[in-house]
Order: sequence, then structure tokens, then C-alpha cells
Amino acid sequence: MNNFDRSEHVYTSDDFDEVIKDTLRFFNGTPVHLIPISERFHGTGVYALYCTSKSGIYSKFNLINRTAFHMPIYVGKAVPKGWRQARQASSPDIESYELSNRIREHSRSINAGEGIELSDFSCRFMILEGKESDLIGTVEAALIRKYQPIWNTLIDGFGNHDPGRGRYEQAKSDWDVCHPGRSWANKCRGVHRSREELLESIEEFLGELEEDV
Amino acid sequence: MNNFDRSEHVYTSDDFDEVIKDTLRFFNGTPVHLIPISERFHGTGVYALYCTSKSGIYSKFNLINRTAFHMPIYVGKAVPKGWRQARQASSPDIESYELSNRIREHSRSINAGEGIELSDFSCRFMILEGKESDLIGTVEAALIRKYQPIWNTLIDGFGNHDPGRGRYEQAKSDWDVCHPGRSWANKCRGVHRSREELLESIEEFLGELEEDV
Repeated sequence: MNNFDRSEHVYTSDDFDEVIKDTLRFFNGTPVHLIPISERFHGTGVYALYCTSKSGIYSKFNLINRTAFHMPIYVGKAVPKGWRQARQASSPDIESYELSNRIREHSRSINAGEGIELSDFSCRFMILEGKESDLIGTVEAALIRKYQPIWNTLIDGFGNHDPGRGRYEQAKSDWDVCHPGRSWANKCRGVHRSREELLESIEEFLGELEEDV
Repeated sequence: MNNFDRSEHVYTSDDFDEVIKDTLRFFNGTPVHLIPISERFHGTGVYALYCTSKSGIYSKFNLINRTAFHMPIYVGKAVPKGWRQARQASSPDIESYELSNRIREHSRSINAGEGIELSDFSCRFMILEGKESDLIGTVEAALIRKYQPIWNTLIDGFGNHDPGRGRYEQAKSDWDVCHPGRSWANKCRGVHRSREELLESIEEFLGELEEDV
């Protein structure tokens, strides 16, 4: 056994930094598609949703994303089954549609939500499979830290699922308060935040964004 | 907008593979300490617990880990606060003791658990902070996939926390059935698995391990 020296345990890697930068460059070079994407496709990975609404509370995004898709409104990931327990083999599960399904689920949420139009939304995505699937959490985190997308940071709950029977005592999420419409969210009975306050905070947040990111 | 071509979205990286191999080499070169570690230390990262018990159900580990710490019994991570939402800045939080605290919590669990002796357990850990903290999940997953530690794979629940008041209707975890003693686990009232079956499955699992990994 050893004497304790913290510095012997600290790992640093410049190469890792380069890998992450490379994933972000790749991500920002992937094609953008309107949602829902008509094709279904296999795989897991990371995606970003972009809003280009010309009117309403998110109209600032039309200015920001006018010339290119600079600023996502939401970033998320779709991981392989068993990922949280790290139990899966690293071979790609060719029968899985996690990423495709997740983006479709988001299309349904946006379609159901008040005050937003599905035709104003598009997405970018990056498939990470095999050993690269280990990068999914890291790339998602790096994108969120870089862009601070409003539905990841200020307004919580867009990515939520139906909590299920027996769990509707919880409060409606911020997102569901701002954009009511998802049927399961309407069942949540907890005390939620004020819609007026949330909408004001969105305006303030977007007001501070620069148009060219 | 674009036509759909899946291949344009698939990211691959040989450099990433090298980074992961490098983290595992570093990890396996870090000093091993008996637990609990007497010093408290700052930081987040990944750790492995090793058993060197000479008797009892885990005595196979004494053979395996006799000459070097080849085979962990458990691998885990301690992440920065706010990590799951990726909201934190990447600057290290020098006031945090997540990794140190997590290893101490495990020492208490082992100390409370029947059929195991705390003095038979040691640990290895790797601090990942700043931008390297993005590697935590990846390194944990790589270690679990490589070693398939029995308390991560076959026997679930070692890393669980007290579920808290109002949630004791759930079943005792496999780990708590095999090693009863944690006071909160004893409050869980759900139907749990049979202790005899679990202990048999441990014997079978360890019987199949090679002594020199």
C-alpha cells in the first residue's frame, strides 16, 4: 500500500481536448433536416434542434439562424440500450432506432405545444456507434456548455417523458407551462411555476443573445 | 434543406480510441489504497474497488489479485455537481470532495454488510477535473466493459443510496440481499430475489474467472 499523493491520481490529456473539438467541428458540418425527418435510420448519438420562427416569443432565433444554424434551442442524446449500466457490448446494435425515435418524439412534443410551429424547427444529428458511442455523453455536454440552449438551461422539461400512472403528483415542467399541450403533462398536479414569469425570462434570455454567434 | 444520407452523419475517430486506452493505462498505474482512505481529497473521477478476501464467497479474488490488482469487484464514478445537466462550467470546483466522499460511503456499506470484511478491500482512483471531467462517464464505462466487475454486473445495488421516506415499497437490492446490514436497505419491503440463488450465482460467476487476468 502507498502513501497518499493526490497528484499521482490526476489525469490530463491534450489529445482528448482535440478529439472533442473535432467532434464539434464534425457536428456543425452535418446536414440540417426539417423535423420530423421522413426517413427512419439506425443508430445512437447526439442531436440539436434549431428554431427559425419569424414570429412569437422565439423570433430572435430567426435573426440568429438566418444565414446558418448557429444556435440550437435544444441539444440531446440517444444512447444505446443498457448504456447507463455500461453493460452492452460495444458492437453497434443494427436493429436500434434510438436517435431517429428520439427526434420523432420531439417533433410530437413541439407539434402538441402551444405557441410553436413544427415547421419552424429543424435538426442536426451525429451518429456515434460502436466504440464511438462512448463519446455520446461527452459531445452532448460539450454542445450544451458551448451553446447553453434555452430548453436545456433556462426552461426545463422539454425532454421529459410521461411520468406514468401513480406519479402525476409532480409539477408540470417549465416547458409544459410555456407550451401546454402534451396530454400527459396536463395530468401533472404539482404546483408549477408561473407562465408569465417563465415567458418573461425567455424574452430576457433571448434579448441578451447576440445575433451572430 | 438536404436529402437524407445516413453516412454523412456517422462520426469515427481513431484518436478517441487512443485516448481511452491511455486513460486505462493511467488508471491501472495509479497507487492502490486500503479503504477508507485516511486523507480527504478534492475532485471528481473514477474508482475501482478490489477485494483480496482469503475466505468466504469472494476468496477467488485473493488468487486473482494476489500478485497485482487485476480484477475489480466494483467500478464507479463521482461526477461534478450539475454534471447530468451539463450546466457547470468546466473549471474545477476546488471545494468539492465527491470522489473522496463516494469511496467513504462505499467503505461504510462494506463495513455494514454481512459476509465481507472492510480490511479485505482496497481502491484505485483517477481524478478527472476541468475539461477532463468530460471523460468520467467514458472511462467508467470502458472499465466496466473490460472487467465486468461482479458488483456492477451480476449483483446489482451496491452503489444505491437510501431511497428515502415514502419509497421503501421497493425491493431490497441483490447486493443488500447478499450482504445485509445497511439500515435503510432493511426498510425496503418489496419482494426481493432469493439469497441462496444469488450466492450460488456468485460462486458460479467467480468459478469461471481465470486466476490471471
